[in-house]
Amino acid sequence: MSAEKKELLSTAPYRGTRDFYPDDMRTRITIFNTMRRVVQSFGFEEYDGPMLERFELYAAKSGDELVNEQLYHFEDRGGRHVAIRPEMTPTVARMVAARINQLPRPIRWFSIPNLWRYEKPQRGRLREHWQLNVDIFGVDGIMADLEIIEIAIRIMEAFGAGKDDFKIHISNRKMLNHFLRNILGLDQSSAGQVCRAIDKKSKIPPDAFLEMVIAAGLSSRQCDQLEHFMNLNLQTLIACPDYISDGTQDLADLFSNLNRSGLADYCTLDLSIVRGLEYYTGTVFEMYDLHPQNKRALFGGGRYDNLVGIFSDQPISGVGFGMGDVTVQDFLSVHDRIPVTPAPVQVFVALYDKDYTGQSFQLARLCRKSGLRTCTQLDAVKLGKQFKLADALGAAIVVLQGPDEISNNQVTLKRMATSDQVTVPMEDMILTINRWLEFGQIP
Amino acid sequence: MSAEKKELLSTAPYRGTRDFYPDDMRTRITIFNTMRRVVQSFGFEEYDGPMLERFELYAAKSGDELVNEQLYHFEDRGGRHVAIRPEMTPTVARMVAARINQLPRPIRWFSIPNLWRYEKPQRGRLREHWQLNVDIFGVDGIMADLEIIEIAIRIMEAFGAGKDDFKIHISNRKMLNHFLRNILGLDQSSAGQVCRAIDKKSKIPPDAFLEMVIAAGLSSRQCDQLEHFMNLNLQTLIACPDYISDGTQDLADLFSNLNRSGLADYCTLDLSIVRGLEYYTGTVFEMYDLHPQNKRALFGGGRYDNLVGIFSDQPISGVGFGMGDVTVQDFLSVHDRIPVTPAPVQVFVALYDKDYTGQSFQLARLCRKSGLRTCTQLDAVKLGKQFKLADALGAAIVVLQGPDEISNNQVTLKRMATSDQVTVPMEDMILTINRWLEFGQIP
Repeated sequence: MSAEKKELLSTAPYRGTRDFYPDDMRTRITIFNTMRRVVQSFGFEEYDGPMLERFELYAAKSGDELVNEQLYHFEDRGGRHVAIRPEMTPTVARMVAARINQLPRPIRWFSIPNLWRYEKPQRGRLREHWQLNVDIFGVDGIMADLEIIEIAIRIMEAFGAGKDDFKIHISNRKMLNHFLRNILGLDQSSAGQVCRAIDKKSKIPPDAFLEMVIAAGLSSRQCDQLEHFMNLNLQTLIACPDYISDGTQDLADLFSNLNRSGLADYCTLDLSIVRGLEYYTGTVFEMYDLHPQNKRALFGGGRYDNLVGIFSDQPISGVGFGMGDVTVQDFLSVHDRIPVTPAPVQVFVALYDKDYTGQSFQLARLCRKSGLRTCTQLDAVKLGKQFKLADALGAAIVVLQGPDEISNNQVTLKRMATSDQVTVPMEDMILTINRWLEFGQIP
Repeated sequence: MSAEKKELLSTAPYRGTRDFYPDDMRTRITIFNTMRRVVQSFGFEEYDGPMLERFELYAAKSGDELVNEQLYHFEDRGGRHVAIRPEMTPTVARMVAARINQLPRPIRWFSIPNLWRYEKPQRGRLREHWQLNVDIFGVDGIMADLEIIEIAIRIMEAFGAGKDDFKIHISNRKMLNHFLRNILGLDQSSAGQVCRAIDKKSKIPPDAFLEMVIAAGLSSRQCDQLEHFMNLNLQTLIACPDYISDGTQDLADLFSNLNRSGLADYCTLDLSIVRGLEYYTGTVFEMYDLHPQNKRALFGGGRYDNLVGIFSDQPISGVGFGMGDVTVQDFLSVHDRIPVTPAPVQVFVALYDKDYTGQSFQLARLCRKSGLRTCTQLDAVKLGKQFKLADALGAAIVVLQGPDEISNNQVTLKRMATSDQVTVPMEDMILTINRWLEFGQIP
């Protein structure tokens, strides 16, 4: 090493990303496992794809803002233009297309990938996040939409959330298109501009919204019609002959099924829901947090009937949602529902002195064989220091064998919570530990 | 859609990467969970870091071949030079350094990240792979090395492998350095060249190896000495006064502890083990497959006493290993030990006809509440087709409620393996399914 002062590298993670230290990692894993358990209870199968995909996958369907401003992309050493996946849907569409004739339908798949977007880091938005993706392919009817919405609700329930905590806002792209094209009489370009304005509405001031729709070519009468449309409730929508379209029928069927399924309390019609991504074609929905300090959309999804079409001549419809870990953690945090996770260490085997390491390794092996998460002291330091470490690791019990215990074929067990201590015959060690862990006392 | 034939995008994943369809994903998850269970039984805690890191992290320590030929790196939109992580050790070293004064020691951490290298895809090597990383920080003595090696062995045992299936080859960098510098009398540059030659030895013809060490400046007498050294066994090594060094003592202690721990059968001294990465400083080891069709190093690790030093003035030693999913799967495959995974669907709720969807959703909910992985038929097709789907999904039991069952408050259950069928009262449904799943028959 040189005599000069070394220049040290920064220990900060790359901007907009997180280091998951063990405490945070346990929370993340517990949250993902909760999601996984619910989705698997619906018979969904987990898949995964590569972190890098060809650039064209996103250029084709993901929308201009994402590709031009947020996508991480570069040329690999072989001159291939690749991108770090910003969303999972193009990957799953590619995988479905590749085996479109072999996969039994419907295809019920989920994944929990990490995704990358070049974002200005802010609350709820980071450059790297994880996202549960749940999709059904190959069902045209709204029963698939119903199942997808039910899964989203069951996941929220599994986190302990109830109908006062969140609400699912549901709309339908076909209904919106029918309104913009056939009732307002807009051309495709104007309709697209209005869609983008509606999608931004909740994030911008009312004046800015009005400016956007006027710029899209709406007259003041059309602006009023749009305002009226966005505030319609289900009864009025269904009752008005003007609005009748495939989308209306789907919405009516979906809500009557939500009702029969006891899920209607969680849901509301909201015709201002668009979803940013351009590939949605039918049902669209967003889940809103109802907590006063976090009133915003948590996540959403919908039906996309032609996404696989960029890879295959055979059409197959899809419906699904994506649920990001950052927004879910914000939700759980504001509702005080971050899951409690167990301590990583149950049993700590202390070291009497250096000559007893073989013995302590052997004790630890016995504990592990019984399924106890057990660690050993690796260097000989004072017992007081060892107890401090055991405590810092959350160990419930410390095991120690010194010369007296060994000559009597015994072991001493200390319960950290109360400092109770017993010396028991070796053959009772596991039984005693298990009872202590289970009942909090030695019976 | 235009009248011309659309140009379809390829469905192939990016070169050197894998799509994980559900069957492959179940295997991957089962393998990772086996690793996780073993490592956690030693009290290790899981962590994770971001996929992208600053380029300097790898430039500092990872070795020239990796950085110049294999690293994926590029400039982000803000002009930052970033890299996709090719290995996890720099990330974990950065994380440890960032909290070096808060973390209780020893730090026992593991992670299962995906890693990227621009490789020419071939057996055992892909551009994206996953790797279990297990590390202990903050213990200078070889008891940490012993624990790390024991964990590697216990993982192999958890996969069902025994001492005839694999062998751990162990050496020590301090020993090797002592031999090259003090016994052969080489300067640092020559010693480095010889190290690289030894590291490549098993992959190149004997002549090519000889050429490399001669190019490094070795005389023919030195070549003989090197050959002799690499073939030493433990007894000879320990007995010869010339070889005495810190490394010899560590090796002797490690093997005597392996012996006392009953792990010696799995291990052998092999002074030709170097490990490519430049940061190893003490114990190094590689695990070899003993199967005649797969005789090669599966994975390895060792002690690196100054890696955290690129981030922090406070020294902390580390010892660990990395175990890649591709090589592990090759090992399990050639030993016929790929784990069997359970079917994703246990219960399939058939649909009598369209008007019964609410009913079938309700039955499915009952099953899920009892922890059964259950899916429903979403569109009304002939029952024969539904049974085929249930079979394709691996469902053990099909549940059906038609008009007769409903009017009698009953349900019909069909066991797919035998085509047995019973109609039972609704309140017996779950009990009957569980018994069928557990005992293979209705008692």
